[in-house]
Formats: sequence, C-alpha cells, structure tokens
Amino acid sequence: MKQIDVCLTPDLLDLHRMENTIVVVADVFRATSCMVTAFAYGVKSIVPVATIEECQRYQERGFLAAAERNAQKVEGFELDNSPFTYMDERIRGLDVAMTTTNGTLAITKSRSAVKVLVGSFLNLEAIASYLRTEPYDVLVLCAGWKGRVNLEDTLFAGALVERLKTSYALAEDSAIMAGRLYEQGKDNLIGFMANASHIRRLQKLGIQKDITYCLQHDLYDVIPVLRGTSLVAMEP
Amino acid sequence: MKQIDVCLTPDLLDLHRMENTIVVVADVFRATSCMVTAFAYGVKSIVPVATIEECQRYQERGFLAAAERNAQKVEGFELDNSPFTYMDERIRGLDVAMTTTNGTLAITKSRSAVKVLVGSFLNLEAIASYLRTEPYDVLVLCAGWKGRVNLEDTLFAGALVERLKTSYALAEDSAIMAGRLYEQGKDNLIGFMANASHIRRLQKLGIQKDITYCLQHDLYDVIPVLRGTSLVAMEP
Repeated sequence: MKQIDVCLTPDLLDLHRMENTIVVVADVFRATSCMVTAFAYGVKSIVPVATIEECQRYQERGFLAAAERNAQKVEGFELDNSPFTYMDERIRGLDVAMTTTNGTLAITKSRSAVKVLVGSFLNLEAIASYLRTEPYDVLVLCAGWKGRVNLEDTLFAGALVERLKTSYALAEDSAIMAGRLYEQGKDNLIGFMANASHIRRLQKLGIQKDITYCLQHDLYDVIPVLRGTSLVAMEP
Repeated sequence: MKQIDVCLTPDLLDLHRMENTIVVVADVFRATSCMVTAFAYGVKSIVPVATIEECQRYQERGFLAAAERNAQKVEGFELDNSPFTYMDERIRGLDVAMTTTNGTLAITKSRSAVKVLVGSFLNLEAIASYLRTEPYDVLVLCAGWKGRVNLEDTLFAGALVERLKTSYALAEDSAIMAGRLYEQGKDNLIGFMANASHIRRLQKLGIQKDITYCLQHDLYDVIPVLRGTSLVAMEP
C-alpha cells in the first residue's frame, strides 16, 4: 500500500525520505494559495527563489516579481503577496519570480523528490485525484513559520490525509495528528484557527479577506508542479 | 501573563528560548514514566546519560543501570525499561544511571533552562500545581522518536496546556495543536492512539500493560528535577 507522510516543518525534512515520493508543499497563508491562484489565472511559470536579491535579478530580466518578508510586501516589486493580486487578466502568459518567508524555501528544499507539487485548500481535490493515479508515496511538507510548525499548513496536510486515507497508509504520527486536527476543525476552520499565531499576524495587517479566501476548498483544478527550477501548470 | 510553549521534538529545540523558562521533558512511552515511578518508589537519583558506554561506566561505579534502545532493554544492565521494574522496595535510596533512545537526550539538551522537570501523565497535576506557583514561562519538550514527533508526548503536552490554560498564554501554534489533540482524545486516550507508531512498536513487544499504566493521570506527587547532572526528587 502507498504511504502518506507529513513533515510539519522544513526544519524536520532531513528525517523524511524523498525516494519514490511525491512532495506536496503547502504554505496556505499565503504563498501556495497565491501560486495556485496565479496558475488558475493563466500565469505561464513561477520561479521560487530564496532571496530578495535573486528576485530582483529575475525582475531585471523581465519577470514579474513578488517578494514577501514577515507577511508583508517588499518595496520595489510589482506583485503583492495577496492572492487577489493574481486575479488579473494581464498576468496571463507571464513569467513570475517569487520569494516568500517560508513557502519558496520549502519548495526548493524538496527538489530531490520524484515530483514537487504546490498544494492549498484551493486545489485540494485536484491534488488528491492526481495522487490517487500515481504509484508513489506522498509527503506533505508544511512550510510552517520560520522553522516552527503552524496550524493552517498542518490542517491542509490533515485535509489531504483525509482525502487519501482509503488508498494510503499513514506513515507516522505526524500524519495521524494532522488528520485528527482537520477532522476536529473542518466544519469551522476559521473558528478553529481563531488563536493561531499567523492568523493573529495577518489580522493585524487587516487581511481577513485573504484568510477567508485561502480556506476555500476545491476552487481550482490547477496543479503547479516543479519542472527544473520553475513551477508550471501540470498538463491535464 | 506567563507563556506556555510546546516543542514537538528535540530536533526543533533551537527555535525555542530557554531564558526565564522551566522545561518539562516528556517521553511518555516510557522513559519519563519510568523516572517518575522510580522516584515514587524512593530512588535517590537518576543520571540521564547519552550513550550505552557512559551508562556502563556508572554501572562500574556502583550505580544501578538501565539502558534501552529501539524500545528494548540492552543486554548487561540490571533494569528493564518498563515502569514495573521500578516498583521494587530494593531500589529505595539507590542511584540509577539511565540511557534511552529519546528521553535522556531531551533532558540533557535542556540544561540551560531555569529548571528541567520530568513529566508524565503519572505526575501531571503535581507538575501543573508546581508551575502555577512559579513566575517562569513553561516549555514542554516532547522527546518524540528519533527526531520525529509522536502522538503520546504531544498528548501529554496538550494535557499540561489544558491544566495551565487559565494562567498561561499559548505561545505558538504547537501549543494550540497539542491542546486541541488532547481535548479530542482525552476521554479515550488508548483508542485515540490506536494507530500511533510507537503504540504499534510497543504492542509488537507485548507490553500493553505498560501502555495502560503510562496513560494513568495523577498517580504520584513526585517531581523529578535536574540538579547538576542528576535528577532528584523535588523537595515538597
């Protein structure tokens, strides 16, 4: 039987094997929700980069650029780190470079896996359906917050565990924990996360609208997949 | 307000601060449950050591010695790694050296804290009552399994979060997660952990009796505390 495992933060990634495994990276608030939205609106590619300087170099070469640190937009870049930024016809067909506090690093750390997919509640069922057709084990990599675990990414992992539980064995306790938390919270995710640290951080920034949006399930069928150093939309 | 934080595995300890903080180490199956039982039965001190060789050196100096690796007793040492080993009048007043796969390392990693206490369900209320009288923040350090998180230590952390929640603020999402999991599982901890990895590992060894014992709440008032390199029972 295929296995599904959950890595609660990139700081624990060394404990997980990548062989024969598809990694699904989740940074629900907001990097991977932005990426999924961007592809749903027709972006051609997204290069996840580690540093603001690298992001600037891509910008100089004609990429649209998005940079976030500590949940805030960095000066001098076109794109905000809100998913609503990407709901714009003018981004269709363009190449984007993006750096974020947690999500982009989690993606680049996963490169040795069979495939790296970008997950969010917005494309949860698309991811689950695709994985069911593949012979590989699954590792959900929660981007967390500066090395620490966070509730929203763990809940995403739990949601994927729930969707896959009939066809996958749960590899370790982290998968059980994520699944149980999602089971407990799924009927009212916003209430369940009321005191979570990143929610508090985001609410201070006045972006309740983004939070509500990022928790919607199954809005899009798109699956961003890492090809070389870029994310592209998986061919249907 | 004082804060309570939870570190889900020693591999993430670098992300947590030790200043002004009392650390409570938990390795529910079975190291810290053994230690609490040993002090309840009158052991004088326990030296947690990292290696089997170090444990042997203490043994040569006249200590009773206990060594466990991969949930099994290591040959050549007096004590088993079952809490029932320690329910013996003959251990009263003796000094013990102990090395385990996860728990003893978690204790030695915490040395820079204000105090290091040994926690288990068996002395949960004793720990909670003591902490309420202290001015310090609290960090629950889950010993986990070889760097990974596990369900039983997370549930202990959640139990302590629940007992302290009226007098402490939850520092980060890991404390929220642990608290929610305990809330969900507390009425039937054995059932809630049915598929947990370490439970499976232990059940293969035929020690259901130990599992049931280690999940009992508030059996003893004793609080093992680290003094120098040894654990001793805190003075009442």
